Amino acid sequence: MQATIITIGDEILIGQVVDTNSAYMAGELNKIGVKVHQILSISDNTEDIISALDSVKMNSEIVLITGGLGPTKDDITKQALAQFFKCGMMTHQPTLEKVKKRMAQLGVKLSEINRAQADVPEKCLVLNNNSGSAPGMLFSEENTVFISMPGVPFEMKDIMRSEVIPYLKSNFELPFRFHKTFLTVGVAESILSERLNDFELNLPSNFSFAYLPSPAQVRLRLSAFGTNAEEIETRFSEYASQLETLLDVDLFGYNEDTLEAVVGKTLLENSLTIATAESCTGGNLAKIISSVPGASAYFKGSIVAYSNDIKMDLLSVSEENLCKYGAVSEQTAIEMAQNIKKVMGTNYGLSTSGIAGPTGGSEEKPVGTVWIGLATPTKTFAQKFNFGENRDRTVIRSTYAALNMLRKELKQNTI
Amino acid sequence: MQATIITIGDEILIGQVVDTNSAYMAGELNKIGVKVHQILSISDNTEDIISALDSVKMNSEIVLITGGLGPTKDDITKQALAQFFKCGMMTHQPTLEKVKKRMAQLGVKLSEINRAQADVPEKCLVLNNNSGSAPGMLFSEENTVFISMPGVPFEMKDIMRSEVIPYLKSNFELPFRFHKTFLTVGVAESILSERLNDFELNLPSNFSFAYLPSPAQVRLRLSAFGTNAEEIETRFSEYASQLETLLDVDLFGYNEDTLEAVVGKTLLENSLTIATAESCTGGNLAKIISSVPGASAYFKGSIVAYSNDIKMDLLSVSEENLCKYGAVSEQTAIEMAQNIKKVMGTNYGLSTSGIAGPTGGSEEKPVGTVWIGLATPTKTFAQKFNFGENRDRTVIRSTYAALNMLRKELKQNTI
Repeated sequence: MQATIITIGDEILIGQVVDTNSAYMAGELNKIGVKVHQILSISDNTEDIISALDSVKMNSEIVLITGGLGPTKDDITKQALAQFFKCGMMTHQPTLEKVKKRMAQLGVKLSEINRAQADVPEKCLVLNNNSGSAPGMLFSEENTVFISMPGVPFEMKDIMRSEVIPYLKSNFELPFRFHKTFLTVGVAESILSERLNDFELNLPSNFSFAYLPSPAQVRLRLSAFGTNAEEIETRFSEYASQLETLLDVDLFGYNEDTLEAVVGKTLLENSLTIATAESCTGGNLAKIISSVPGASAYFKGSIVAYSNDIKMDLLSVSEENLCKYGAVSEQTAIEMAQNIKKVMGTNYGLSTSGIAGPTGGSEEKPVGTVWIGLATPTKTFAQKFNFGENRDRTVIRSTYAALNMLRKELKQNTI
Repeated sequence: MQATIITIGDEILIGQVVDTNSAYMAGELNKIGVKVHQILSISDNTEDIISALDSVKMNSEIVLITGGLGPTKDDITKQALAQFFKCGMMTHQPTLEKVKKRMAQLGVKLSEINRAQADVPEKCLVLNNNSGSAPGMLFSEENTVFISMPGVPFEMKDIMRSEVIPYLKSNFELPFRFHKTFLTVGVAESILSERLNDFELNLPSNFSFAYLPSPAQVRLRLSAFGTNAEEIETRFSEYASQLETLLDVDLFGYNEDTLEAVVGKTLLENSLTIATAESCTGGNLAKIISSVPGASAYFKGSIVAYSNDIKMDLLSVSEENLCKYGAVSEQTAIEMAQNIKKVMGTNYGLSTSGIAGPTGGSEEKPVGTVWIGLATPTKTFAQKFNFGENRDRTVIRSTYAALNMLRKELKQNTI
């Protein structure tokens, strides 16, 4: 089963945006056993689109296309598809209703441009887009299925999840394929790689194992494929459980889990609450905790104390400690964690104080130095990290290191 | 002058890594007036590489290739290039010396794999790699120049900067090219598109115009090319200034500007300070403001008041208003903005209160309803928005709507 991905957009070809859609689509296809043999990025141009469709149809059973479906004039994928499949355009009523409703909500009159968003080539099967107004479109011709989606990542992902993957699974005979992603936090890829060396070497040939590192986490993907579903499943569980033993406490979840949701679930199930006091993370810790739907049940709030005045006024950090040890110190992190817990009346208080950079570093405390404090119902402690010189990465790493400290603490002290 | 970019690597085709090399190379080529008409990602496989080279040579004067040059990939790209250009391999002495030196530094014996790193196809011109051992290679055949570089981003960038761009500039007659990106916030793409309809229709044929929407902003890219630099520059400024007039107050910056940096610069230059009181944005507003290096000069901090208790205790929101109008209301947003300004002792206070969802909506206040409040040195006011049903997007849109309210206010009242 061979697939080609085509992304359309001048913004990709002039290097203005990085094409992240292709990696997502390729990853999703890979999971269901469809091999992507080519990714093609082309211009917003009828001729180029048609010539690309022509060139890939011979050696692809599946062609996924994104981009060029918005309401503006530089979006021409639909016209190109109609021309390629030799058909006219028609209005897709449900889409038109959706566009009308959206415009009414915005209090804007329906324009011709809005109305045209509901036009689709006559030969297509419309795929529902729950996240936007541009519909997905599916064309079947000879031995190839062509699927066109909007280029906006969350709209494309929505259509992939709810329409494309289910369609491919039920219309193609795909090999049996098992995969599971094991999520770790707080351990470097190189250290994991040494720990898992023997495990990797002993994997059977129909298994594969991949490291997917990001600034704060390393995801590990174990895959297996074959023709006998039951047999693969059994072996897969054996290796999965070996891996779990090796990862031990550094494993926090699977597949689409997030550290914030895992921690949130534990807090919720144990009727515990949390608040944060942030300096170097600047609100990102609160933002990540509150990104989980329903977080208001356990997350009370945060004080982002960017200036020392605010640390003293709102978090009662002692002037003496600030002068003696500095804002980036064990003492300050501990005071911040203790006091936010008190101020917000929560069971746990989590604090961050560090030097995100690019300026503010010293020999003793270089850029990237971060202290993270945690106040629990029974004790308060802080831990020192160095997250390197990149400001954004230091914020992200501090955020997940703080959540990981809380996760480990909760693991020991909750059901 | 047409170029094609080919990136080689199975890791791209299974979605394990996002191909960022292409965007970099495309951006660099675009800057010197070379048009990239296609980006192609293919497998680590001799046949696929040769067939890709074959398919692009007819319509490309320049072909940039990355990937498949490391010692672990068996140098598959080099073998494929030798086969494609019908030549043997030879040892490149300076590269061999470099590899030997590197291995000696590491205290490792030179292996056959190491030695093979210095092999290159006989027909190539070697391009120096100052950041690693795999050399760049240039082949000239008929009307096409093929350039192969390693896939490691910083090695590729080094060769692009020091070898490829200077080579192209001195060996090709390149057109003059101007482009500028105009950044807008707070206006939907469809509304902008109507406003700019005549402008677009009147653009000369050597101009192009593109909409690049994201959840909170719409970027507009104006480009022009031609052979007479002075003439294009003059016309470009004319159209750029027409566009600026049409965009008016919705234009906040150009090219790589960000809304948070633009607002931060105004605050800094006018010695003004800001603090935020956040409910539905959950810390994201503080995080975005503080993401700008040097933000501590104007950003004092934030209180994230996720629960009503915290709104009352720390932000002095009156219980009466909370009961009568609810937490998501004009009154609460105003009280939050006023009180955070007072508590933090700043010139401006910005507040958000809304229903991010997925639950918590009602008929009167559906999911996506957000009130944003702004306290200035002289007045306080709030504005109502509806950002739709997606939780993450509502947070992002609320954040940028709040920053935009502040930007517009500052525009009227600062130098």
